[in-house]
Parts: sequence; structure tokens; C-alpha cells
Amino acid sequence: MNDFTFHTPTKVVFGRNAESKLGALLREQGCRKVLLHYGGRSAEASGLLQRVRDALKAEGVGWVELGGVVPNPRLSLVYKGVELGREEGVDFILAVGGGSVIDSAKAIGYGIGSGGDVWELFERKRKVTACTPIGVILTIAATGSEMSSSCVITAEDGWRKLGCTSETSRPRFAIMDPALTMTLPDYQTACGCVDILMHTMERWFYASGGMELTDRIAASLMRTVMKHALILRDDPQNYESRAEVMWAGALSHNGLTGCGSDGGDWAPHKIEHELSGLFDVAHGAGLSAVWGGWARYVSREHPERFVRFAQHVMQLSGAGTDEEMALEGIEAFEDFCRAINMPTSIRELGIEPTEAQMQEMAEKCIAGLHGPAGKVKKLHAEDIVEIFKMAL
Amino acid sequence: MNDFTFHTPTKVVFGRNAESKLGALLREQGCRKVLLHYGGRSAEASGLLQRVRDALKAEGVGWVELGGVVPNPRLSLVYKGVELGREEGVDFILAVGGGSVIDSAKAIGYGIGSGGDVWELFERKRKVTACTPIGVILTIAATGSEMSSSCVITAEDGWRKLGCTSETSRPRFAIMDPALTMTLPDYQTACGCVDILMHTMERWFYASGGMELTDRIAASLMRTVMKHALILRDDPQNYESRAEVMWAGALSHNGLTGCGSDGGDWAPHKIEHELSGLFDVAHGAGLSAVWGGWARYVSREHPERFVRFAQHVMQLSGAGTDEEMALEGIEAFEDFCRAINMPTSIRELGIEPTEAQMQEMAEKCIAGLHGPAGKVKKLHAEDIVEIFKMAL
Repeated sequence: MNDFTFHTPTKVVFGRNAESKLGALLREQGCRKVLLHYGGRSAEASGLLQRVRDALKAEGVGWVELGGVVPNPRLSLVYKGVELGREEGVDFILAVGGGSVIDSAKAIGYGIGSGGDVWELFERKRKVTACTPIGVILTIAATGSEMSSSCVITAEDGWRKLGCTSETSRPRFAIMDPALTMTLPDYQTACGCVDILMHTMERWFYASGGMELTDRIAASLMRTVMKHALILRDDPQNYESRAEVMWAGALSHNGLTGCGSDGGDWAPHKIEHELSGLFDVAHGAGLSAVWGGWARYVSREHPERFVRFAQHVMQLSGAGTDEEMALEGIEAFEDFCRAINMPTSIRELGIEPTEAQMQEMAEKCIAGLHGPAGKVKKLHAEDIVEIFKMAL
Repeated sequence: MNDFTFHTPTKVVFGRNAESKLGALLREQGCRKVLLHYGGRSAEASGLLQRVRDALKAEGVGWVELGGVVPNPRLSLVYKGVELGREEGVDFILAVGGGSVIDSAKAIGYGIGSGGDVWELFERKRKVTACTPIGVILTIAATGSEMSSSCVITAEDGWRKLGCTSETSRPRFAIMDPALTMTLPDYQTACGCVDILMHTMERWFYASGGMELTDRIAASLMRTVMKHALILRDDPQNYESRAEVMWAGALSHNGLTGCGSDGGDWAPHKIEHELSGLFDVAHGAGLSAVWGGWARYVSREHPERFVRFAQHVMQLSGAGTDEEMALEGIEAFEDFCRAINMPTSIRELGIEPTEAQMQEMAEKCIAGLHGPAGKVKKLHAEDIVEIFKMAL
């Protein structure tokens, strides 16, 4: 077992009409000028944004607005937000949306809090020293950014997608009303379920150590998400299933499912970030497309954890060799992905990277990490190219 | 499913020699004068207290000391701590010990933070307005007080045992080194395991609603604790098992295993508090002794959740009626208690309350709660007397 630190200070208010608690939560934070950050039309069309504005008005809190966050959120909008926040003396950022909006809010918070050029923090040229406090009203269950300490931003110049992790960015509060996710397109719901699963799966495939309690909790979470993803495929209005998935999304990325492991593998995430950085595919679908390639490549040399995945998560009871069992588990997970209409190959994303593009993505991945990707097997550029080919 | 709030801001530093992080954690808190609070000889004899003093000295933090906390911690010492804290201008309390020490620290923190007579807060005559910040170095895995928002204190005058819950009392940090629990007597280790199980079991037996993810996590936690309690019975020096139990203890009472339920039942705890208030028995042993009586009494009318307990926690697969299945689950849990040398009747605690004493305890229980105990079945004084008799 590895030593660990567990710190999840985010106050979660979960349930029907949880957004009605916004005023009280803002009061607790004692903020005076809020940057209201959001994406496109849906939050406006649903009336949610208007309810937020009403709450801000009722609390006597000033605010400025910045909408327009897109999936794979862009650095240019982050720069705009940092500038706006500095000019307006913003002391709190309220993210209304899914992971992209929250990630964009965190990046803006880093920029305001830590000064200078915010991208240098993502490039690891400087360290985060502070982040403007963030609150969240979650409308998509997926990234777990509502309780996590990390965010991922894409720089349009060169389409580089980099993450930046700091405890300072964990949201102060997260309002989670499962009903707010009911209007999502089915494709986005399924993408979210894959992303949630992957956050725990990345931690599941650790290289050394581990803790039985964590593994059991992780398997519980994955079983629950798979079950309710299938229910939501057929019944998107199912509140209970929306709630199971939404809560799983937060727990999957707040650190709980990694306690005692060595931090997890994260190679599939890093590889997918290159893919969605270059081709702008949905993160969850990208993960679904590349995971099988990664799993087959890595399990050849390290079947042990894949066997446990097959047994404890996919609940298979085969009599074959470790290698066969590992492969059966991988195939069972891909069957699940297909069942919720998620791709299990890169071509199914509607793209076909050239050899040169695969090489470019692999090299950018290693460069961004300043070293090899993953822990179970340390992957160099040539390994990543191989994985892209296997996943093609 | 019920709406819920989940807020666990305690920073957990877990692992071998985690106590070496004390200096850095105190620095984060920015405290200037610490009340160092502890129990008896063991923390001194092990050298732990001296290492704490050395860390305080190295950080240039002033401190005063108050030892002498006993199991079922006493109000008289709390009064002493409040007075000392006020006189000395203490701005942080460091609890070095198990649940009794942490609970005593919380009560002292309430007294310093909220002013006036601290017992009035437990009697619900006034509300907690503040609590002096608390840090913990945990030496017993049991109560989960290291991440919880509650504490229980016994007033010697009338041997009344009352709890007081406030979010303000959740410790700022908790240092958890499983190796520190290795010197515990086997009896205390077993008591701790029962207490940990009961914190999740109280939440498992809710009256309405519930969440599949929470139920699965709860079952995972209970299975893990039962497995490692048996290992520790035979191999008390097993670090991995110490760690599993210690982490389970924190998660069992920080709210995680109750998300989406209606807050849990808690009648067994309330009933046991009367028993240990009057007879000063160990809390975990007291719970083990009374739980079967409670479970049999309540499951008669409400077998459903007991059937699920039998299936998902005790992993029984019987073909009988709901009533039979519920009873099998209760008996299986009692078998586990006996296997780790815990009592399953009040007489096994070495005490035999008279009819009048049972009546007195039942009435004090109801009076302390200002109403009936429990949720699955609301228990009045006559119900509680009946449960005492069944558990005798």
C-alpha cells in the first residue's frame, strides 16, 4: 500500500432543485464580485442562467459574465477571462456547466490568482501560487472537475492540450441537481459515463501497492455507472440513474478511488488529450476509442491488474490463462462501450490520423509530460504510435 | 433517493510515519498557541508525545498540555480544557489519541469558540456558533471522529452521555499512521472494528430512499472491515490490515456511506450511549452487545433492509422468507462479533442492569433526544426497555 493524502474540501449540495441553495452558498463565501462563466445556449435556454442572475441580484453580489466555453476549452477564452477578472476585480468565479466550463474557470482562476501568463503554468514553467475561489453549478456528469484539483486547456496555437493540477483549484462548492442533466443529448450522456469510468479505471491500473478498500469502492463505482449508463440509454429521464451517475462522477475524480494506489496510470487520458487536441473529438468518446489499444498493448507485459479488472469489475469467471482472462475483460468493457453507442476505434470517431499525425501526437504527448506516459508500463513515443495504430 | 450535503474538508495524511508531516500541517494552519490534548500513558510511553512536542518547538508554536482523557470522555475535563484554553489564548487544539481524545477536543473547541457553559450546547439549550480549529494524530481506529462533525461527552453528574454535532468541529487535518495502532490491546482493536462497522450499519438501516452507489460502497466497507478484523485477531502487527481498518474508520463516519439515505437510524448508538454512560463499558463492546436486540426487535416489523443486509453485507443466499432471511443476517453478524471476541449480550459485558435501571436508561435516552430514538422504527421508552431485555 502506498501512503496518500486525501483532501476534498468541496461542499457538495446534491439533489432536486439544489440550485436554489446558491444564494446561501455565495453568502458563506463572502464574495463581492463574481465572474459568471458558462458555455453556449443550453444554460440560457433552460432558464438556469436567469435563475443564477436572480440569485446574485437577491444576494446583492455584483457580477460580470463570460459565456462561450466550448468542449476542449480554449486558451484564448481563458486569456479573455483572466483579463476581465483582473479589470473587474473579480473575487469569485461561478462556473455553470460541465467539465469544460469548470476547467476554463479553474484556468481563469489560476491566471487571476497567480499572475503573469497563465499558459506558463500549464507548460510547467512556473508554479500555481493561488487560484480565485470557484463555485460550480453542474449540468453534465462527466469530468468530475467539480471536486477535482485539475483542469485541461487547449491552446489553439499548435492545438496543444495541457493539464494543470493544484489543490488551490478545488471548487469551494458544487451544486449538483441530477435533473439538470436530463436534457443532454444521449451521445453526451454516454461520453460522460465513459469519462467517469475512466477516471476510476486510470486509478485501478496502478503499478504497485494498492488498498483493498479502495479497490472494492472503485469496483462498486464502476459497476454502478455501467448499470445506470445502460438504463439511461433507454430512459434518459430516469432521475435515480441520473443521480447515481452524477454522484459517481464526482467521487470518481476526487481522489477516493485512488487512495493507497500510486496515483494511477493516466496514459489513456494523456493519449486521448492529444487526439482531442488535434481533432477536437469529445473527450469521453476519444477515451472509449483509444482505451482498448492501450489496454491490449500494456496487458501483454502486465496482465495482473487486467485480470483483476476482468474478475472484480467486469465480473467474469473464466478458466483461461492470465493473458486470456485479461483480454476477455478488455473485450467485455468494449462490449459495454458499444452497448451505449460509444466508439471502440479511432475510425469510428470519423477521423483517420496519418502516420505523421500519430507521430506528431505521440511526440507532443511526451513533450507535454516531460517524460514517458503511464505507470503500469512507461510509454515512449514509439509505444504511443503503436497504441494509436492498434486503436485505429 | 434523498437529497444530501456532503462536506468533508479534513485533510488526511495517511501512511507510514505520517506524523512527521505535523510541522508542515501546523504551518498551513497558521496557529500560534496550541492546546495539546491526550489521554493516558500510552502516547507518552511510545514517544509519540515527545515527537509532537519536538515538532511544535521546531515550528516555533507555543503550547499548553492537557492529558488525562478517559474512554467515554468526561465533562469535568472538558470544563478544565475550556478554562485553560481561554486563559492561555489557545487558537488550535491538537488531539493525540483515539475517539475519546478527539471528542474531548471538539467539546473544548465548542466551549472556547461558542462561549458560555459548554454543556448547554450538548443539552441543546444553545447552538454552537464556532469551534476552535482542531488537528488530530490518530492512534485508535474506531470512532471516525477524525473526519466527523460530532462528539459525545459524559457528564459525571447523573452520568448523562450526550452528543453535539456541528460542521464547525470537523478536524482541519488528520494524521493517520496505521503503525501507531499496532500496540493496542486486542480487545480495543476489536471494539474499534465493531464501532467502525456500526457507523456504516446505522446508515445502512435507513427508513426511506437510498442510493445504489452508497449502498455498494457501504457494503464494500463493511466486507473489508470484517475481513481485516479477523486477520488482526490473529496477526495484530499486520500493517496492511491496520491500514484497511483505519481508513475504513474515517470513511465510515465522514458521511460517505450515508449519501442519499435519510441520515440513518442511530437507535443502537443512542441506546448504547445510555449503557456506557451508566456502566462505563467500552463503546464498541456495548454496541456489539445491544445491536442484536435492536435488530431483532425492529426487523420484526421492517425486515426489508435486514434482508438486504443479509444478502449484500453478510453475503447469504437463503431461500427462506424475508423474516427468516433477516434473522439469518443478524445471526451471521453476531457470529462475526463472537469470532473477534466481542460480546453479543449485555451480561457478557459483566453487567446486569436491573429493571429499574433499564427504565431509567430508556427514559434518559428519550429525554436526551427530545423524542423517540431511531428512524426505521421510532422507539419510545417502552420499546427501548424491551430491546434491553432482548439483549440481556
